[in-house]
Amino acid sequence: MKKLHGIIPPMVTPLLDRNTLDIQGLEKLIEHILNGGVHGLFILGTTGVAPSLSYKLRSELIERTCKQVAGRVPVIVGVTDTAFIETLNMANKAEKFGADAVVIAPPYYFPAGQVELCQYFKDVISEISLPSYLYNMPSHTKLIIEPETVLEISELPSVHGVKDSSGNMTYFNILRKKLKGKKDFSLLIGPEELLAESLFLGGDGGVNGGANFAPKLYVELYNAAVDEDWNKVRVLHDKVMDISTTIYSVGRFGSSCIKGIKCALSTMEICNDFMAEPFQAFKKGEQDIIRKHLQNLEIL
Amino acid sequence: MKKLHGIIPPMVTPLLDRNTLDIQGLEKLIEHILNGGVHGLFILGTTGVAPSLSYKLRSELIERTCKQVAGRVPVIVGVTDTAFIETLNMANKAEKFGADAVVIAPPYYFPAGQVELCQYFKDVISEISLPSYLYNMPSHTKLIIEPETVLEISELPSVHGVKDSSGNMTYFNILRKKLKGKKDFSLLIGPEELLAESLFLGGDGGVNGGANFAPKLYVELYNAAVDEDWNKVRVLHDKVMDISTTIYSVGRFGSSCIKGIKCALSTMEICNDFMAEPFQAFKKGEQDIIRKHLQNLEIL
Amino acid sequence: MKKLHGIIPPMVTPLLDRNTLDIQGLEKLIEHILNGGVHGLFILGTTGVAPSLSYKLRSELIERTCKQVAGRVPVIVGVTDTAFIETLNMANKAEKFGADAVVIAPPYYFPAGQVELCQYFKDVISEISLPSYLYNMPSHTKLIIEPETVLEISELPSVHGVKDSSGNMTYFNILRKKLKGKKDFSLLIGPEELLAESLFLGGDGGVNGGANFAPKLYVELYNAAVDEDWNKVRVLHDKVMDISTTIYSVGRFGSSCIKGIKCALSTMEICNDFMAEPFQAFKKGEQDIIRKHLQNLEIL
Amino acid sequence: MKKLHGIIPPMVTPLLDRNTLDIQGLEKLIEHILNGGVHGLFILGTTGVAPSLSYKLRSELIERTCKQVAGRVPVIVGVTDTAFIETLNMANKAEKFGADAVVIAPPYYFPAGQVELCQYFKDVISEISLPSYLYNMPSHTKLIIEPETVLEISELPSVHGVKDSSGNMTYFNILRKKLKGKKDFSLLIGPEELLAESLFLGGDGGVNGGANFAPKLYVELYNAAVDEDWNKVRVLHDKVMDISTTIYSVGRFGSSCIKGIKCALSTMEICNDFMAEPFQAFKKGEQDIIRKHLQNLEIL
Repeated sequence: MKKLHGIIPPMVTPLLDRNTLDIQGLEKLIEHILNGGVHGLFILGTTGVAPSLSYKLRSELIERTCKQVAGRVPVIVGVTDTAFIETLNMANKAEKFGADAVVIAPPYYFPAGQVELCQYFKDVISEISLPSYLYNMPSHTKLIIEPETVLEISELPSVHGVKDSSGNMTYFNILRKKLKGKKDFSLLIGPEELLAESLFLGGDGGVNGGANFAPKLYVELYNAAVDEDWNKVRVLHDKVMDISTTIYSVGRFGSSCIKGIKCALSTMEICNDFMAEPFQAFKKGEQDIIRKHLQNLEIL
Repeated sequence: MKKLHGIIPPMVTPLLDRNTLDIQGLEKLIEHILNGGVHGLFILGTTGVAPSLSYKLRSELIERTCKQVAGRVPVIVGVTDTAFIETLNMANKAEKFGADAVVIAPPYYFPAGQVELCQYFKDVISEISLPSYLYNMPSHTKLIIEPETVLEISELPSVHGVKDSSGNMTYFNILRKKLKGKKDFSLLIGPEELLAESLFLGGDGGVNGGANFAPKLYVELYNAAVDEDWNKVRVLHDKVMDISTTIYSVGRFGSSCIKGIKCALSTMEICNDFMAEPFQAFKKGEQDIIRKHLQNLEIL
Repeated sequence: MKKLHGIIPPMVTPLLDRNTLDIQGLEKLIEHILNGGVHGLFILGTTGVAPSLSYKLRSELIERTCKQVAGRVPVIVGVTDTAFIETLNMANKAEKFGADAVVIAPPYYFPAGQVELCQYFKDVISEISLPSYLYNMPSHTKLIIEPETVLEISELPSVHGVKDSSGNMTYFNILRKKLKGKKDFSLLIGPEELLAESLFLGGDGGVNGGANFAPKLYVELYNAAVDEDWNKVRVLHDKVMDISTTIYSVGRFGSSCIKGIKCALSTMEICNDFMAEPFQAFKKGEQDIIRKHLQNLEIL
Repeated sequence: MKKLHGIIPPMVTPLLDRNTLDIQGLEKLIEHILNGGVHGLFILGTTGVAPSLSYKLRSELIERTCKQVAGRVPVIVGVTDTAFIETLNMANKAEKFGADAVVIAPPYYFPAGQVELCQYFKDVISEISLPSYLYNMPSHTKLIIEPETVLEISELPSVHGVKDSSGNMTYFNILRKKLKGKKDFSLLIGPEELLAESLFLGGDGGVNGGANFAPKLYVELYNAAVDEDWNKVRVLHDKVMDISTTIYSVGRFGSSCIKGIKCALSTMEICNDFMAEPFQAFKKGEQDIIRKHLQNLEIL
């Protein structure tokens, strides 16, 4: 597997109800995303609400996605779990169905010390055959993977990069600085509001939710950065901020972003907008606002 | 099932390694606890590190515990999960193996709004046959079940009580006040440092970790409160604080309490001290300190 | 000065506008509180919104209060400040006008480490002639005075006690335990919702906001605890919870408690309800609710 | 006053002891900074530890700084205070001594709601004659000035910009987006680790602590951004990160950054390194590390 780079959308999980995949929607969504020219596909992350899904459904999603993508781009699978054994089980499924790599965040119920966390990553990664990526997501795991821990884990031969969703660019800049010597190590940014600047500062790509419904925009931004066309990067960054301040700003809970993406996809007739518990899909009023936003943004 | 009251220890899960129960230890531990005169047994809670265990092992633990207890006291099973379906699966196991009730905390990855949380509890509880108890544990779930939410959920006929591990006695006092009319509704306290005062103020009992190794102390304290022998309650509270400031204060991470309990049980030759990831058992130096504390406390 | 004990109300600061004392209101308020049989008076604390007042006004308040109280009970003055020198200036004012002791919380802008905090308390207390009390108030100072730090500072001869407003009864119980040997050291509780249990567990008294408008209730509760009439303590605790769940629960911001107290005093025609910035007094609608609550509670 | 832009260092306050300015050091420091070609000077901010200084010393610092700068660059004065009246007093001093503008963060003891905060800013700014800048500093004030609040306050004619020290680039990007129409409104970044990207994305300049000892580096970076020489910006950003990961990473408390700056200035024989309480200057061992870092960075 080549060094991971570019736009690797964190795919939402299309559902008909809490334990049934929207299979038709899934196929349409994958094709929609791949048509955008993305460089990879990340399933069962936070945007994919993995922790809210049954293990059976997670397994089915891996199988169907790998089959549908069929090697066109790398498929990366989130295997984060509070239970060590269940992380391994899911990593084995990923390998069996042909995924290319796994992503692991800290176990998210017990607050581990940094020493304990470091040992945890070493232990779990040593049992997984696929290449691994670390996932820094303190808003949901309540644990930061400190730069020194990343550095220590990055010495393991099967660790190929970090996805940073902390939203903390000082952290990102410190990582970039400390990992400079590692040429084959990917540093990917989560929040799309930070994509332009992370690319400007030497990041390798983005795992951005908006690339579910507008993959071309993010790919174009990435390509402009590769071409060092910084004016274009800024124009496209402005469009990304247009999405962030509209589509992701409807509703009043922390879940506004995921709900906005699913509602946009449903409005675009790509897949169902059912949300697994503890969330619920936008109602009519919010749907209408999303529709208007999509029209203003010329996405619809 | 009668109204839950008294001391219901949150049992640790004796392990030989990360995916193997210490079966002999489990049997010894259950007998040790029941010999202390406790009023119930709570398995697969935070002290039982449920989120760190494979589902297979959790299922085995329920089966073996129910069989061993054999109706001598009610067995309560923690079924909290980030995935709705897995909560139901575990609740079905609990029912199948003969447990008496389940305990449910908020799903702990995504930060739900209080309205979403309330709907979640209604939905999940309506699908569970066994009596349910709410579990307020904000330090680990990062969500408070606000008093108004508890009040609304308490209207469901199968909801029989709350276990409050917030450590916030103002919260507890507000709950006590608001739930006054509900005669058959149990209000149980988690932190043993707060057991004496919660009983003094009308609480129904405690789910206290120390009752794993010193069950008689907590039962005696509970009985003294029932007898309104408040001087005795205070003397015993002082002993509880002796445990808290010694056994639970070794080591430097948030996991000191669970590690201290397991180390005490191992020192007392009741069960193995293996800790599931991301934690690790105390080493020799810390073990020696725990042994000394147990001797000073005349537990050993 | 005798060991501080009993009910020491944290007096609100009656204001006509942002920089003018309500002098008539102040006199009436002091007499109202003292008529309740309280054991001391604490001015310029959090309830007294000291940080929101000009230094000139703080100084005037100390002078007028000391003069009006005229030795009938001890007057304790909050001198917490982010600037070392201003803490000393205010402590000198307190001494000059005849106050009996000062209360000091951690400086609240910069996040000091515990070692730095410990040194800070040693340095500042060594420059103050009056007896000093530590003030643990993490919700506002964002710093906990850890039990070990309290223990170390308690060795200074001029330190006579701690006021704990953390709301964390485990912390309080640990302090009580560790300070057991110090017979002349006072442990006072801030939140009135925890007064009953703190007295039950050996606390020395309360610094409770409700004693501004209902001083007799808190004094009666304290006296019942001294008499070990625990049933009476519980009945009165229930009345305290009635106040907490009504008077302090109007409005939607963290300032509900202080606003409720001031509004109650204004409704009772004791003093003006003007609130110093960044707060604002309750409007008509909220005032009517407070009035109704006071009537239901038979305070009005 | 022209639109504020470029590098406006947040000056440390040189002290001989807790209440005595290091007057010679202050003069040397101002000349050192101004020789670096900076575009303004910000005194009495967080780096200047304003909240830790007596009011008398703050006043003296304003007077001496304005006199020494003598109009060569604009002087901006932090007037944030928990007390409304003391903010006005300090703003009056700033005006009297000839400063050009004031900076105001939220009052930092009481947790105001956003509505209350908005009203507070309107009230306080309406009483100040000098131009005002908002200061978003949630790590120390514990309050975010939400984008909608900034937008509302920005309508006041005397409000000319925002200094954002949140470290949250998504927040910054949202502000940039929402304030796009306001041509004369400055958006300045606090953390120097984020200077390059904020300039890349349309920010107007930086209030960066490192410009106390290495002003030329930050000015050069700013000028390269103005020239759209993005490769140069990245090379200089890398040097800024070298400072951040060395000079600011000695010692174990939150105060490492300010201590590192003061120690560097003392090592460079520019001014005294005395730290006002609750902090303390680095000791010999840490000083030696800072000296080595400065040599490696070719600053010394």
